[in-house]
Amino acid sequence: MSAPDPRLSINQATIKRASLKEALDATARAGISGVGLWREPVQEVGLDTAARMLADSGLVFTTHCRGGFFTMTPGDARNASLDDNRRAIEETAVLSAAAAPGSTAVLVLVAGGLPEGSRDLIGARERVRDALGELSADADAAGVTLAIEPLHPMYASDRAVVSTLGQALDLAADFSPETVGVAVDTFHIWWDPEVLPQIARAGREGRIATYQVCDWKTPLAADVLLSRHYPGDGVIDFASLTSAVTAAGYTGRIEVEIFNEEIWSSPPEEVLRRTVAGFNAAVSPSLVSPSLVSPSRQQP
Amino acid sequence: MSAPDPRLSINQATIKRASLKEALDATARAGISGVGLWREPVQEVGLDTAARMLADSGLVFTTHCRGGFFTMTPGDARNASLDDNRRAIEETAVLSAAAAPGSTAVLVLVAGGLPEGSRDLIGARERVRDALGELSADADAAGVTLAIEPLHPMYASDRAVVSTLGQALDLAADFSPETVGVAVDTFHIWWDPEVLPQIARAGREGRIATYQVCDWKTPLAADVLLSRHYPGDGVIDFASLTSAVTAAGYTGRIEVEIFNEEIWSSPPEEVLRRTVAGFNAAVSPSLVSPSLVSPSRQQP
Repeated sequence: MSAPDPRLSINQATIKRASLKEALDATARAGISGVGLWREPVQEVGLDTAARMLADSGLVFTTHCRGGFFTMTPGDARNASLDDNRRAIEETAVLSAAAAPGSTAVLVLVAGGLPEGSRDLIGARERVRDALGELSADADAAGVTLAIEPLHPMYASDRAVVSTLGQALDLAADFSPETVGVAVDTFHIWWDPEVLPQIARAGREGRIATYQVCDWKTPLAADVLLSRHYPGDGVIDFASLTSAVTAAGYTGRIEVEIFNEEIWSSPPEEVLRRTVAGFNAAVSPSLVSPSLVSPSRQQP
Repeated sequence: MSAPDPRLSINQATIKRASLKEALDATARAGISGVGLWREPVQEVGLDTAARMLADSGLVFTTHCRGGFFTMTPGDARNASLDDNRRAIEETAVLSAAAAPGSTAVLVLVAGGLPEGSRDLIGARERVRDALGELSADADAAGVTLAIEPLHPMYASDRAVVSTLGQALDLAADFSPETVGVAVDTFHIWWDPEVLPQIARAGREGRIATYQVCDWKTPLAADVLLSRHYPGDGVIDFASLTSAVTAAGYTGRIEVEIFNEEIWSSPPEEVLRRTVAGFNAAVSPSLVSPSLVSPSRQQP
């Protein structure tokens, strides 16, 4: 087995069934240097404990997943969502400060779908813009970059009304790149005829807050949310996309984030071994240098 | 039950289990004035017989479905596909000439996915352009408009490497609008942040060869190909899209094309009744006039 690429980071969702402690231990034991966390397992142990566990792991913290889901019309539910996003911003800052040098403070945002009974896609998208406006001061104060993640258009109605990288960049344009960036996830954008110019634009505008990789293949899983695969197991051209992200100036860590029932049912050690092998074969050859300095705002 | 909108046409796939004769009879009996056909049931009875049956039905012919699937690299399979597309062009011309006045000669093209084992999406798209180049003279000679149909990005790998209306229009741009147009299908493009400007562009460029409607809702069917619904049963904003298509100058018939196992298992009469009700409620209010003169090339 080859050594993990120093650019590789494991998104915790890839080994979703492991507790936070188990996930951190398995990642460190596998020789992987970075980790992206999810809110639920962090909240399960409490933020202070999670931050201490993360510090003890020696791992670099790459993203916190996730905020967003703020497409509802004004009212209690929207206010509750914004408050929850403020907590997520705070969690991101605390975890990033506790983690190893080189950690970034990036909160991934999934916009949310159409509110129940609504067909007003354009209105929902405007409310995403409004929500970013309401959260940007909090993010800025906390030193956290909000990373808008465009999701594959098959999730447009029930999960994310932001479907393309170009659209995410248009939403980000009102804010400084330190405050609002984008998440570039191969699974969601590989099909886009505009993907290469939009990656270049994201780089020019200093907006690539995280680069996440996993693969696409058909037939899709019956639950399309769980249809993600190890890099190299599907049809995504990681060479082309990774070269574009590299040429756009992104030098940070690269997360592997996979939702897949079969992978979740496998032992974490095996999943990490397969992840390392897939990443090294499909992604690493397109990384020109092992630089780990992200253009995103660094924690002190 | 209200009378069918005179703009409504039934795509035969909506009542897929009916034979050609049964489909034509049921459509005419329901008072629907137009029909789009599929190649397989036409070939089942033979082209001459199909043309006579279509003529006898008194129905206006709106599209022939479908050609395309020509993303493979040069070789026998590609040559066979191009030959088959030439036959589809000829079928379209024959059926259109036989059908009632007002019929159009439109062959819908689905590009095809990535060839087995390939990750070269850009190359596959270039081969679509090449195939259009090889078929355009045949289409022109036959008086047939090739309608490139962008398919939802969830089909990008296995069914159509053409995923957006803008991309389809870019492909069409090398040809005259009489020879190469686009199919505007709500199911495939409703999510696109660029959909309204691209519909307007399609109108300006004279490329809207057909407008097809059905609805999107989640959870998607386990086979995502069969996840289409009656207009009004899902989340698509037909008012906005239909108004845009109307403002773009499209005055032809509008097909309802639904792939859905439950709908296919229902009696055709019931399906047509539900289709009429859904269309009248969701689509008709946005049609400013019942004009039936399509900007596409008309058969004499």
